[in-house]
Amino acid sequence: MTYRLLKDISKKDIKKTLKLRGKVTTIKQTSGPTLMVLNDGTSNFTFKAFVKPGIRAYPEIKIDDFASVEGEITERNGGIEAEVKTMRKLSNIEQEELKESIKKLQEGKLLPDTTEFTIKSKGLEALKPRFIKVTKIIKKAILDGRPILLRHNADTDGYSSAITIERAILKTMDEMTGNDLQYQYNFYKRAPSKAPFYEYEDSVKDLANWLKDKVKNNAKPPLIIITDNGSTEEDILSIKQMKIYDATIVVIDHHYPGEIKNGKVKVDEYIDGHINPYLEGYDSNICAGMLGYELANFINKKNENSVFIPAMAAILDHTEGPEREEYLKHAKEKNFTEEYLSELGEIVDMQSHFLRFMEAREFVDDLFGNNMENQKKIVSMLKPELKKRYEMVEKVAEKYAKIKDFGKFYLISFDGEKATFRGDYPQIGKTTNHIHKTFEKKQDKPIITMTHGSTFMTIRVSDEITNFAVPEFVQKVFKELPYINANGGGHEHAGSVRFIEYAKEEVIKLFDKYLIEVNSKQK
Amino acid sequence: MTYRLLKDISKKDIKKTLKLRGKVTTIKQTSGPTLMVLNDGTSNFTFKAFVKPGIRAYPEIKIDDFASVEGEITERNGGIEAEVKTMRKLSNIEQEELKESIKKLQEGKLLPDTTEFTIKSKGLEALKPRFIKVTKIIKKAILDGRPILLRHNADTDGYSSAITIERAILKTMDEMTGNDLQYQYNFYKRAPSKAPFYEYEDSVKDLANWLKDKVKNNAKPPLIIITDNGSTEEDILSIKQMKIYDATIVVIDHHYPGEIKNGKVKVDEYIDGHINPYLEGYDSNICAGMLGYELANFINKKNENSVFIPAMAAILDHTEGPEREEYLKHAKEKNFTEEYLSELGEIVDMQSHFLRFMEAREFVDDLFGNNMENQKKIVSMLKPELKKRYEMVEKVAEKYAKIKDFGKFYLISFDGEKATFRGDYPQIGKTTNHIHKTFEKKQDKPIITMTHGSTFMTIRVSDEITNFAVPEFVQKVFKELPYINANGGGHEHAGSVRFIEYAKEEVIKLFDKYLIEVNSKQK
Amino acid sequence: MTYRLLKDISKKDIKKTLKLRGKVTTIKQTSGPTLMVLNDGTSNFTFKAFVKPGIRAYPEIKIDDFASVEGEITERNGGIEAEVKTMRKLSNIEQEELKESIKKLQEGKLLPDTTEFTIKSKGLEALKPRFIKVTKIIKKAILDGRPILLRHNADTDGYSSAITIERAILKTMDEMTGNDLQYQYNFYKRAPSKAPFYEYEDSVKDLANWLKDKVKNNAKPPLIIITDNGSTEEDILSIKQMKIYDATIVVIDHHYPGEIKNGKVKVDEYIDGHINPYLEGYDSNICAGMLGYELANFINKKNENSVFIPAMAAILDHTEGPEREEYLKHAKEKNFTEEYLSELGEIVDMQSHFLRFMEAREFVDDLFGNNMENQKKIVSMLKPELKKRYEMVEKVAEKYAKIKDFGKFYLISFDGEKATFRGDYPQIGKTTNHIHKTFEKKQDKPIITMTHGSTFMTIRVSDEITNFAVPEFVQKVFKELPYINANGGGHEHAGSVRFIEYAKEEVIKLFDKYLIEVNSKQK
Repeated sequence: MTYRLLKDISKKDIKKTLKLRGKVTTIKQTSGPTLMVLNDGTSNFTFKAFVKPGIRAYPEIKIDDFASVEGEITERNGGIEAEVKTMRKLSNIEQEELKESIKKLQEGKLLPDTTEFTIKSKGLEALKPRFIKVTKIIKKAILDGRPILLRHNADTDGYSSAITIERAILKTMDEMTGNDLQYQYNFYKRAPSKAPFYEYEDSVKDLANWLKDKVKNNAKPPLIIITDNGSTEEDILSIKQMKIYDATIVVIDHHYPGEIKNGKVKVDEYIDGHINPYLEGYDSNICAGMLGYELANFINKKNENSVFIPAMAAILDHTEGPEREEYLKHAKEKNFTEEYLSELGEIVDMQSHFLRFMEAREFVDDLFGNNMENQKKIVSMLKPELKKRYEMVEKVAEKYAKIKDFGKFYLISFDGEKATFRGDYPQIGKTTNHIHKTFEKKQDKPIITMTHGSTFMTIRVSDEITNFAVPEFVQKVFKELPYINANGGGHEHAGSVRFIEYAKEEVIKLFDKYLIEVNSKQK
Repeated sequence: MTYRLLKDISKKDIKKTLKLRGKVTTIKQTSGPTLMVLNDGTSNFTFKAFVKPGIRAYPEIKIDDFASVEGEITERNGGIEAEVKTMRKLSNIEQEELKESIKKLQEGKLLPDTTEFTIKSKGLEALKPRFIKVTKIIKKAILDGRPILLRHNADTDGYSSAITIERAILKTMDEMTGNDLQYQYNFYKRAPSKAPFYEYEDSVKDLANWLKDKVKNNAKPPLIIITDNGSTEEDILSIKQMKIYDATIVVIDHHYPGEIKNGKVKVDEYIDGHINPYLEGYDSNICAGMLGYELANFINKKNENSVFIPAMAAILDHTEGPEREEYLKHAKEKNFTEEYLSELGEIVDMQSHFLRFMEAREFVDDLFGNNMENQKKIVSMLKPELKKRYEMVEKVAEKYAKIKDFGKFYLISFDGEKATFRGDYPQIGKTTNHIHKTFEKKQDKPIITMTHGSTFMTIRVSDEITNFAVPEFVQKVFKELPYINANGGGHEHAGSVRFIEYAKEEVIKLFDKYLIEVNSKQK
Repeated sequence: MTYRLLKDISKKDIKKTLKLRGKVTTIKQTSGPTLMVLNDGTSNFTFKAFVKPGIRAYPEIKIDDFASVEGEITERNGGIEAEVKTMRKLSNIEQEELKESIKKLQEGKLLPDTTEFTIKSKGLEALKPRFIKVTKIIKKAILDGRPILLRHNADTDGYSSAITIERAILKTMDEMTGNDLQYQYNFYKRAPSKAPFYEYEDSVKDLANWLKDKVKNNAKPPLIIITDNGSTEEDILSIKQMKIYDATIVVIDHHYPGEIKNGKVKVDEYIDGHINPYLEGYDSNICAGMLGYELANFINKKNENSVFIPAMAAILDHTEGPEREEYLKHAKEKNFTEEYLSELGEIVDMQSHFLRFMEAREFVDDLFGNNMENQKKIVSMLKPELKKRYEMVEKVAEKYAKIKDFGKFYLISFDGEKATFRGDYPQIGKTTNHIHKTFEKKQDKPIITMTHGSTFMTIRVSDEITNFAVPEFVQKVFKELPYINANGGGHEHAGSVRFIEYAKEEVIKLFDKYLIEVNSKQK
């Protein structure tokens, strides 16, 4: 008599008694029956064995044993499970046969659902082997019942990437568990990060939480997915700490990851998979929201993402290039105009500002299209609110920003801390963007916008100023002011520097000096 | 054979088998039996149906179905429930009959427990139809099993209002569920707000929490009760957001709600019920603690509130008028002296300062008289502590406050941020009150006390200065400094303005100019 | 037929039916059986009584009754429990006999596991009666099923003391409950405190949490253990508040507790047990980590603490004297070098900085030697990180610190807020330590290092400067600037003062004046 595959059991089998087998992956003693989850390589399936209330049934069968069961299929909470009639450990020969079968089946299950991207893109094609590798790692973690933590940058692009990947993961978990909602909440968590990297404090918290889960619930080492963050040197300390505890770590990012040597960057020494366009000669114009959207399809094609998400991410992250155009085109075909997506993207940014460190899975799901009607209502509600707030930003800047003429361009400078309320929206970065955009339109020359605070400087530069590069300025800061505990970076024309308060005037002076140089080189 | 009404089942029926019916309002599968709650319009009642451990009994009966049961009454955790012998869906005819009966019974259950106030007050009488409406909305939410969230201002008046209403709600829930403590914690929550309005960040959090509850536990749309906040324009954005998700919202407030047009103010467009004395031509002297105390009686007369609560609220909110006198008189009859209530009120304010965002339902319950012995001990313990702290405030002010003679009055000004420790008690507002009070006694003219910080100005004005009005000054700020992102308001003689740090000196200058005008008009 | 003692039941008894008795200490109704815990004075033991799913078995038996049971021993989750066959209340005579027996047995169980210290120390010997008293109080709280909260200073010494005591408590709970992991989490909590005393805000939070537990779960009044904090006047308000609610409170501290009168200090009026070397004529050189390590042995000798912990605490707290030498010697015998312990101690400090208010029991357990391999990996990982951070501190100080020659010594002063990032590590205190240490080496005279911020001043003084005493300076501040809301203190050569921002320049001036005096007295 052969065994029925666990994946083939359906509601049609209710009340039938079937012969089943698998590896015991979970044992949980309730105050009623003993619950065991078996996996035969095709699926997990829950078995309920009952002797007496709260008494462990089949105590001789331990976790990771291979067992054979005769069980009656029953309904539970809309799903199905089996009631154990008899259960026994497999013999050695049976065990080897099952192991081999599981191994083959699982290898199959790790394969991507698709290896085709939804748009034509040389950059994505070049990244394909990396997509496949990361997909396999994520699918294996799901199959192995490891807890998954998704860490992401808390802006619209970071959320776009995170939510698209999240949906593919949850879909896969649902398929594996027969829509066990509680399993999703137990084995998957998402956490937004305010900093543009995986902060050490966050990794301490993540590790402490996982260790508690390990001690209390025998949790396996986690899979950490980092997106729209994770590629840079600043991420390494946190990643190293998680690796000490056998975490698996994959990164999906589009920030400049530092110099490539032998096809690798610094962080590659510590992580298990890495998707970043820079690694294949492309750049940040393939943004995290695009990468997440495509990766989601690789993981599970039945995810419910809409193409408006990568299009919105592209707009909010100011990307350029063919990928942006493709996604915008596809989104337009689904009746998402560029204007609507721009508004929605700004609103996602505002809502995520107020969500701060909350996961708010269900709230975010609606914003990202789970409930289109509510999405539209929220856009209608917040559009005038955002307009009002940005009009005030314009008035503040009109009054307080200082304009200095360098000859070829103007410097617009103002104190970000004095111009905004702490904790309010738009915060200093968004405020700087907006001031830059509005002053650019009004001036007769290109401009450089510089917001300073007691410990930072934020910079935005008009396209026409070809000799300015934030990374170059940051290098000058490092070199000429090595004693100010500086860090920072960004793109050529947008970025920031952080320094101790003692150094504020020195940094501003150095900036002025740099602008004189830039001006003299500018045509 | 007729059905027994669910409300009539008592412990005397234990071991009897009764014929019962109702609408299925909850189904919960435990690892043991299936729990269902039925409601026949007179009460909720829990039924336990058991087939096998963890197996769903009567899977054909779904939520919102109408069912008939024969069940044996049993004891559980001090309460009672029924064990299902047989259960079936009602026929269409039976169903219609039950629906009709429930409808009639429920209409009866929504009626106020009383429509008499505990004191004579024209203002309250004018508000009576509003009390009745809000009472019905709250009672209906309880009967419908909707989650209730009570948001309130975190000062003594706000707490007084919130706790009195809370007790009436919990009492009603207990009556409905047969004292199911867990039900209280699942279906009712209270959250203090530091800001004088329903902050947008709080509404994001509330919405996210409710959506999680909805996805995980099928929670119905919530009833939001806002008290000692909620009437003003600043509340509208948060309220609109909750309305998108079908929340019902009622407001019990005594702050100036803005201009009344056709009997309505701006917020009325978005809320379902509104009690505010201004709406009927009265003012903030009928404070939130009074409104809450009376509303609690309308909801459930068996609530355990004592009249010391509205009396204490009246004192702490500096109200005047007949209502204050009435409550103080009643409180005195119960041996609560004005002096004790003043001390207690200050201590409630201090404790709530340190509670910050915690609900701390049980801790607050003791402060509000659940355990009078502990209340008295806490007053004894904190009275000398408060005295010590205020003596220090006096020394600080004596040394650092600046006094300027305008002719008809003095201006007392000092820097609130430089005079207090961040996060400590008394915070800047309370410190300003105290300085105003102590300087007023010492000076030979009336005074205006003005505390400034980097982004705010707090104002208190002696009664004798008849030409000063905070709202008037705030309007001047809006008009003359439209670029400083200002907001603010308050009563004639107590209020505050908030502005970006850039504007500090401009606002102080404008204030000085306004004081010169006020001085020139003053007799 | 005699009763079997509960402590004597073992896995060998599985499937046997035994006659047992005890006082009913817990009754919990699950959706399956009724769980009762009985205690006969030798141990707690869990009994499972089943009538029908969710039905209360033996409703006539209430909490605190004395009962006799025949029960079959069964396995559950690796532990054992008994299934009730029959159960009855004891007769009055039987009850009295059992009560007497429990009383005698419990008195025995409260005795310390040992009364010998692991090192020779006159100071510890003098404190022995206090160790015994505190041990009995802790053991009694465990036996009585009271919730235990351990509050501790969040530095390396405070953690060392807390973790060593924690392990002894958890071990004792495990012995009592048969390794019930959930019991540990329900009945024991630890909370680090950033302030150097039991902050009032923390006590409000602790009380509110316990009251919720009391209302929901009938929790008994808690035992509060305070370590590396708790002896000073600043702790009293918090302690008084907890006492109102019948908490038992013990303090294990080594900070100066104020003047001793009749063998008692101020806080002794409010607490139940107090271990502090000052109380017996010794001083802070017997640090909290040492006291905790020894107390742990008194409580439960089978705790898994290693001697490296008190040795590490001694190093990080800069203690001197014979106890430090003894622990270092013992640690060396276990292959812990002073260098390694110093590194580890610094890393514990850094990790605890980032843990902030989290308990993180399992994470901390590894750091403190539960997993030596991981401890070593973390040290390897963070050693270069710490080095990098302190090298930057040196560069900052080199550039910005001001040096003033007083003749006999130099004053090194700098602005701590301008020199560090808020929330980052090393924070201002640690930064000051490091700057003091590095400047001391470079200068030709002894130094005084003074870090100021807008509301504080932190002071470190070279050993050679014999006339400087932080407490003396603090007294001067109190006397000459009574209007600045100052507090502060510390050791002779290390401490700090806190004041309102208004007073900053005055305090610095007074400090300068004091230094001139110190200089004139210095030889």
